Amino acid sequence: MATFEVTFLPFDKAVEVEEGTTLAEAAQKAEVYINNLCGGEGVCGECRVRVIQGEAAQDENAEAFFSKEELEEGYVLACQTEVHDALRVEVPAESMLEDEQIMTGGSRDAVEEGDDVVVRVETGLTVYPFKPLVRKVFLELPEPTLEDNITDIERVSRELRKRIGWHSYEISFECLRNLSDMLREHNWSVTVTVVRDSKGYRIQKIEPGDTTASHYGLAVDVGTTTVVAQLLDLRTGRVLAVEGMHNMQAQYGEDVISRMIFACRKGGEGLQPLREAVAKNINGLIDALTKKEGISREEILAVVTAGNTTMSHLLLGLTPCSIRLEPYVPTADVFPQILASDIGIQIHPRGVLEVLPSVASYVGGDIVAGVISSGLADQERVQGLMDIGTNGEIAVGNSEWLVCCSASAGPSFEGGGTRCGMRATRGAIEVVEIRDGEVHYQTIGNAAPRGICGSGLIDCIYELVKNGIIGYEGKFDRKREDPRLELEDDIPQYVIARAEETEDGEPIVITESDIDNLMKSKGSVFAAIKSLVDYIGLTFDMLDTFYVAGGFGSYLNIRKAIAIGLIPDIPEDRIRFIGNSSLTGARMALIHEEAFEKCIAVSKSMTNIELSNYLPYMDEYVASLFLPHTERKLFPSVDY
Amino acid sequence: MATFEVTFLPFDKAVEVEEGTTLAEAAQKAEVYINNLCGGEGVCGECRVRVIQGEAAQDENAEAFFSKEELEEGYVLACQTEVHDALRVEVPAESMLEDEQIMTGGSRDAVEEGDDVVVRVETGLTVYPFKPLVRKVFLELPEPTLEDNITDIERVSRELRKRIGWHSYEISFECLRNLSDMLREHNWSVTVTVVRDSKGYRIQKIEPGDTTASHYGLAVDVGTTTVVAQLLDLRTGRVLAVEGMHNMQAQYGEDVISRMIFACRKGGEGLQPLREAVAKNINGLIDALTKKEGISREEILAVVTAGNTTMSHLLLGLTPCSIRLEPYVPTADVFPQILASDIGIQIHPRGVLEVLPSVASYVGGDIVAGVISSGLADQERVQGLMDIGTNGEIAVGNSEWLVCCSASAGPSFEGGGTRCGMRATRGAIEVVEIRDGEVHYQTIGNAAPRGICGSGLIDCIYELVKNGIIGYEGKFDRKREDPRLELEDDIPQYVIARAEETEDGEPIVITESDIDNLMKSKGSVFAAIKSLVDYIGLTFDMLDTFYVAGGFGSYLNIRKAIAIGLIPDIPEDRIRFIGNSSLTGARMALIHEEAFEKCIAVSKSMTNIELSNYLPYMDEYVASLFLPHTERKLFPSVDY
Repeated sequence: MATFEVTFLPFDKAVEVEEGTTLAEAAQKAEVYINNLCGGEGVCGECRVRVIQGEAAQDENAEAFFSKEELEEGYVLACQTEVHDALRVEVPAESMLEDEQIMTGGSRDAVEEGDDVVVRVETGLTVYPFKPLVRKVFLELPEPTLEDNITDIERVSRELRKRIGWHSYEISFECLRNLSDMLREHNWSVTVTVVRDSKGYRIQKIEPGDTTASHYGLAVDVGTTTVVAQLLDLRTGRVLAVEGMHNMQAQYGEDVISRMIFACRKGGEGLQPLREAVAKNINGLIDALTKKEGISREEILAVVTAGNTTMSHLLLGLTPCSIRLEPYVPTADVFPQILASDIGIQIHPRGVLEVLPSVASYVGGDIVAGVISSGLADQERVQGLMDIGTNGEIAVGNSEWLVCCSASAGPSFEGGGTRCGMRATRGAIEVVEIRDGEVHYQTIGNAAPRGICGSGLIDCIYELVKNGIIGYEGKFDRKREDPRLELEDDIPQYVIARAEETEDGEPIVITESDIDNLMKSKGSVFAAIKSLVDYIGLTFDMLDTFYVAGGFGSYLNIRKAIAIGLIPDIPEDRIRFIGNSSLTGARMALIHEEAFEKCIAVSKSMTNIELSNYLPYMDEYVASLFLPHTERKLFPSVDY
Repeated sequence: MATFEVTFLPFDKAVEVEEGTTLAEAAQKAEVYINNLCGGEGVCGECRVRVIQGEAAQDENAEAFFSKEELEEGYVLACQTEVHDALRVEVPAESMLEDEQIMTGGSRDAVEEGDDVVVRVETGLTVYPFKPLVRKVFLELPEPTLEDNITDIERVSRELRKRIGWHSYEISFECLRNLSDMLREHNWSVTVTVVRDSKGYRIQKIEPGDTTASHYGLAVDVGTTTVVAQLLDLRTGRVLAVEGMHNMQAQYGEDVISRMIFACRKGGEGLQPLREAVAKNINGLIDALTKKEGISREEILAVVTAGNTTMSHLLLGLTPCSIRLEPYVPTADVFPQILASDIGIQIHPRGVLEVLPSVASYVGGDIVAGVISSGLADQERVQGLMDIGTNGEIAVGNSEWLVCCSASAGPSFEGGGTRCGMRATRGAIEVVEIRDGEVHYQTIGNAAPRGICGSGLIDCIYELVKNGIIGYEGKFDRKREDPRLELEDDIPQYVIARAEETEDGEPIVITESDIDNLMKSKGSVFAAIKSLVDYIGLTFDMLDTFYVAGGFGSYLNIRKAIAIGLIPDIPEDRIRFIGNSSLTGARMALIHEEAFEKCIAVSKSMTNIELSNYLPYMDEYVASLFLPHTERKLFPSVDY
């Protein structure tokens, strides 16, 4: 039997397969992971790929999934297309499994910008069926007769059961109000909006005609420093656009603790401004996303947010005061589903909002989202996850057990707390190399530099040590002669981009105080993972895979992150950078009912280790305030 | 061993028991049915009785259940009190099993007025545990510590589970809003309001301190002609007061059909006035009941209504238009739980409202309530139920199967559609006897007569035939010389109460047209039960018990009701008049979660026979327009 070579782009992975193999099977053989929501039945339309070289036959149902233009461009369903030629096949971002999309769904301003940066990470291999939190189903009901005169709502439910399975639907009272007239005036054709909540399925809305085309959802990562939202098409689960902005609560306090203090001052009068700030953030993102996609905000029917426990409380208008003080008690860890309008989020008036559940006062829905999106809880092997935001949150475990802890990291890795720090958006320096006294850098979107994002800062520190510009304790060598080494108010700083190179004509520098902040951040996070691993009696080399998540940027140089002592020194091929896993987890919960259920299960089963009660932590922290670490043998691979 | 005689009042039933027997056991032996919610554990306090003669020892916990005054008056718990003396014991209405209360909970203006009329009916012997739709639980929570730092809401739920069993509580978002501060400011003592709905239990409200004393509910029978409401103490399930009034929708149409026509005219503009009318009815009843009991309407936390399908639709503001026309399709038969405020019912702003489920377009929640309160679905024996309101609704069956049908009866039996008809309230003539040309009557409350209620009208017809004043076809013998037989506009009428006897100085009469209406009403109802029994292949004598429900009054002379051909001629001891079974069922659903669940089950399993499609019905109807019936052998016992 003939064999043909199939090459998958952008991965450039080639594989030899027998004639008649499907493209989906070929992809699997090539270790290219493509969506497979319907199990290869050709009905979900989620495995769209484009044949750019060679002949591939269209399957007969192709028209249902592609526009004429797309058919001409060579789009096919991978699961329905057999190989009868040597082929080059491009896998678009939306057809890659969840984790394939992480980079494009990260903290960049738009999907488009990130499309060229696709990193294959072998995480979250659990394939959940596509069951969004809110579904729309178009029904054409049979007219009642004397032999079939069940009630109007039961007629709707009966047809719905044929479509989405047997459920005892709860009925929103509003749905009954004009149902009788609506059915009779619109020829028994209606679109039913069904919402899943903790108790089951609820018929939320019934409207005349077929409105299934207007059906969007929002996944939001509510970070302490940055709020990022993705707009999804809930018909397909596809990410349409992503937007991010600084958390406006920052005006009331930079970190979680200072915001809690603000919220609780004068008997709690600070709570409302904080709640309103984050609502304004999300409404602003909705505004930008809907404008970009040319839809109205009323077409968004569901929002899922992930954030740390304090962020989730503030979003819901719940006081965080007792989270801050011993014995650290939140109001809730699993939150009820609410109407988005209950907290001032402007989407469809009957649109719902879910906040991913927390584990403890300092281990929030963001890390639960990370566990879900990394697949930590799905596998027998013990793995680790480190989510570095303004807090560093850490989880270790497998499908049997999960432990976690958290440590305050500060905003350094998200571009806060440093002179020229910025979020990982257009113009951010994300890669830095110093060779022969010259600085080489790369910016997001290849734009004129505007600042340095987290990944650029990590590179900077590594390069400064590597080139002897700063010492292992993070201080500049003031005696060194280097035109880029300046003093401002007697504090040394190093010029990364000269004034003439930058967008605003101001130089981009890294100061000794910036380095000091970064040392504390990385020290705090490393001490936490070290303490946790010690606590449960493991060593780093027992971790099968170590996932690193965070808003550093679209790129993280893992070798350099190890070298500055941020990430444990385990073989690089066992470390996976998975970008904004909080956002990915929120998106998964939005479109996969079972992923949402797993979030609840994880939040209930994960054991939190309170580091403030764990004495060795402070020693570990002090030992970590060095590059890479005072205990050099913990970092054998470091090359300086 | 010594034996003593115990006599129970007001039944005047005496029984000889051995010394040491409890009063509860003695009552059972005497066939006096007393509440026994806790199974004789002495904890529910529902078997209060009063020892009015003889010595009875108080049990040690008596203070918990009685005021000082009550103790002095001789109140004891029947289940905790042993017999050591000959006793006379009075059973207050509230301690009688559900059905014992029917008469007092019927359509009289107040419980007090009806206390003397207690009829023992052997129905509804299923004893449901006391689990009201809305419960209030006072919790004193342990303060959190570092070892026990679960979230605030989980702390509430955990304590609640200890009290009312393991449930996964749904949380109303409002409950979280100030929870953290409330718990800490009020010494961790709160009252939790828990609501049961179709999906389980929901924490509806959490408030500081112990508010369990303020906890009331409302059971409402929304009849076409009359709306009756009972105020219940939801701590105990006790009926505190009852009020009734004419359904204000009557201004838009007297019967169900004319109201449907009104609702649907000009594209449905009649719906709102009808909805508002019944809301005004219920609000008026709430007003009267709360004033009488000295409580505020905000202390009412739950309402359960029972009504026919059209009444339930109108109450909820759902159009009844397609109920009226073939193929007779209601919007819904099982209704979602709503906030009472959603439909303008003024109780606590978070108070809930349940509408008992219907079976079909013309078989509503009222007959479901009747099935529950009669116990029709609980027994193996085949029984019948006939609920005579403005519609006559009929059910036949047992624990295995249930069939039902309905027929329009008109408002005659509720005092509508007749010249001097009135509801069964104070001043209504409820018993009539004609002897030697003289009329003897009895009024409710022994007041001056104001009109005739349903039971009085039935008596009238019987007496008029019996005395030869009207013929078997219901026409007056115009040739008869009788000072009470008058002509008005050439239409004969008979004076029941002379002008000088009545409250307003106008004579109370029964006209030929009144009799005609009553003949049609009774004919329609009898034809329905006859058709249904024929349809399922039974005969009347196969019915073990036949329950008659309706708003006739507190008293129904069964022998006379048979004699006019309203009730099938089966032995009188197998016929039970159970008063307003719709109201009783609504009350049961309000205070017994499992009774509510049975309502749902009955509504789903009962088979409706559409009489409009059943050809023999019209023949039966025509044959029934005679006294007692054209087919005289159907009524062998009738004495004229």
